Amino acid sequence: MSSLKKRGDKRLLKVQKLRREILGRRKRKLRIPDNVIKVESPSPEKVHERVHEVTINFIKKILEGKDPYFELPSRSPDNIIYDPMLDMVFLGRKYKKRSFISLRSTRETTITARILSIVHELLEENIHATKREVFYNDVNLFKDQRESDDALEDVAAMLNVERNALHVVASAKGAVIGRLRFRESNDLIDCTKMGTGGKAITPLVDTITNIESDAEFILVVEKDAAFIRLAEDKFYDKYPSIIITGKGQPDIGTRMFLKLLVRELKLPVLALVDSDPFGLHIMLVYAVGSKRMSYETPFLTIPEIKWLGVRPSDLDKYKIPKSVRIPMTKNDIERGKQLLGEEFIKRRPEYVREIELMLKTKEKAEIQALASKGFRFLTNTFLPEKIETGDWI
Amino acid sequence: MSSLKKRGDKRLLKVQKLRREILGRRKRKLRIPDNVIKVESPSPEKVHERVHEVTINFIKKILEGKDPYFELPSRSPDNIIYDPMLDMVFLGRKYKKRSFISLRSTRETTITARILSIVHELLEENIHATKREVFYNDVNLFKDQRESDDALEDVAAMLNVERNALHVVASAKGAVIGRLRFRESNDLIDCTKMGTGGKAITPLVDTITNIESDAEFILVVEKDAAFIRLAEDKFYDKYPSIIITGKGQPDIGTRMFLKLLVRELKLPVLALVDSDPFGLHIMLVYAVGSKRMSYETPFLTIPEIKWLGVRPSDLDKYKIPKSVRIPMTKNDIERGKQLLGEEFIKRRPEYVREIELMLKTKEKAEIQALASKGFRFLTNTFLPEKIETGDWI
Repeated sequence: MSSLKKRGDKRLLKVQKLRREILGRRKRKLRIPDNVIKVESPSPEKVHERVHEVTINFIKKILEGKDPYFELPSRSPDNIIYDPMLDMVFLGRKYKKRSFISLRSTRETTITARILSIVHELLEENIHATKREVFYNDVNLFKDQRESDDALEDVAAMLNVERNALHVVASAKGAVIGRLRFRESNDLIDCTKMGTGGKAITPLVDTITNIESDAEFILVVEKDAAFIRLAEDKFYDKYPSIIITGKGQPDIGTRMFLKLLVRELKLPVLALVDSDPFGLHIMLVYAVGSKRMSYETPFLTIPEIKWLGVRPSDLDKYKIPKSVRIPMTKNDIERGKQLLGEEFIKRRPEYVREIELMLKTKEKAEIQALASKGFRFLTNTFLPEKIETGDWI
Repeated sequence: MSSLKKRGDKRLLKVQKLRREILGRRKRKLRIPDNVIKVESPSPEKVHERVHEVTINFIKKILEGKDPYFELPSRSPDNIIYDPMLDMVFLGRKYKKRSFISLRSTRETTITARILSIVHELLEENIHATKREVFYNDVNLFKDQRESDDALEDVAAMLNVERNALHVVASAKGAVIGRLRFRESNDLIDCTKMGTGGKAITPLVDTITNIESDAEFILVVEKDAAFIRLAEDKFYDKYPSIIITGKGQPDIGTRMFLKLLVRELKLPVLALVDSDPFGLHIMLVYAVGSKRMSYETPFLTIPEIKWLGVRPSDLDKYKIPKSVRIPMTKNDIERGKQLLGEEFIKRRPEYVREIELMLKTKEKAEIQALASKGFRFLTNTFLPEKIETGDWI
């Protein structure tokens, strides 16, 4: 990547300060609780090895004339310990046994063994499959995809790895562009040379290596339209950054990719979403996930994400004409009120104030509404002001 | 791109024959009907020039003391002449005038003039905008996005260009990988080096130049999951091809990109979709579009697309287990029957037979159902057999 002048660039002071804060928090002394297991993303070889270990233990019991069983950590929320500051996941000491003692447990144990064997095949052949393909691989046994999905999480927990390490992946529809370079299945991907469409994010994030970047922050944009505007204006060269879009509600693959970048590069993440309940919901999905805590959640969430805009207070601040503000529907207002009940929001008074303002004015606005001030208002005025003044919450 | 051995490769004979057939048809003697205007995709400079011409003509009338008006071709289906064999679009001689004679026509004329000025700004600054941004650019005048969308098609017809030439674009969520190289906003994009996620397709297709390929065909796949499988197995190196997915129902950007490749490279297009009414619907969208003929249709459609699979008759042929075939719902059957009424299907007896088989067996199956025969059955058996034996319709 061509070198950018960044040192002493006053425009970047605020975002650099934010980055130092995040780094500082990460460096806090590591206090791993007692009696817990750390969940990792080990190499395929290591996972392969663990599959063998688990299987050999199972067979040994048979050879010793004992009842064979799998022992796997409970995936109930109280047994998953996630420290967002350390960004680490631990499994507690609650275990459940899978054996052949009853009809129901025989079925469960058989499914667990079958999934182990499928994962073994994927690792051995070094290929990836989707959850759907895994289901179809033995539909007679699984009957319903929920069964195989569930067993995949069980096996991941049993091996103390994240699901992606099993070579079972979700699909991805997101794109990335900007000051980022990496290898994907050994192909060198230079995201500064990706035209205007960007690089399609691969759901096989474990094939990504050698991540390099001289960006100062990651900008996550809700919609493709804003992504194109930023890409066409090469915004990432003016403000050294990486730009990612999930093209609406982000899928698992895009979130996993973003999380990987955050982990490797330790960059702040700023969100650019519509000023409406759905935009905020999308930001929440990136931040804390869409459902209650599950085994996968910690591998996907970015709790330190910042809400850059478009915020309800931006509408007056940037003199966005009344004519491009849209009245909220009843449904919007209902969803806005629900947001106020979310744990993540409640803990952030500035978020509450913004949402209350939205509910008071009953106005929403899309990112594209900024085009009422000119097509390049977003890249030439709105974002630069936000970034230079540190206007995020 | 590394050179592939293709000459005399028996596996490719059928697909090469198909290509020659398509090329042959294209070379038929060009008979342009009398009294029609050819719609083009000219350079931005040329479009810019035409905007000036139209505007100067308008102003001249004012200076001459006459009532000024815009004269634009009707966009009714009977005035759009599309020859799928020649792949050319013509506008007939039906015109409508936009002037300031009545209140309603004054509004229409003002909107047309405003859109002309916005397009002029986009061309002058050499940037692109989405339809949504154009709407927001003067929301007071347009009131409703349908008005500005409609006016954009009017202006495109008035300038005898396709809408994309106005620098107004749709979004795109598709991806491409395989034996293809091009420049996108001057960045060199090599789709053989795009990892497993592929290149995100840009909706700014007019920024794509220097298209090169040694592929023999284009494979359009319905779903991301199949795309990943093909990308991971580097299918395009075994069978020189370009692989595209619209990730479900394809958007305008992806269809426009595919059409561009077909035009430039003159390659056959083979479709890999689910064996169900929705999969077939997706193929129809690529083939003939989703709505009735409109001004944009000819710039998007691939009527010569071939249905490779998964076809209802493939299920028995490839011994796909009964357990992975899903019973069709009432709704599926209803949609299947509706498909039999589609002009495109009716003209293809082999399609009718396949759909009748589907309706008789009341069974559907996803592409992923092939994984019941092994994760690599798709890339190692199904597709090779199809391509080598020319098994498409």
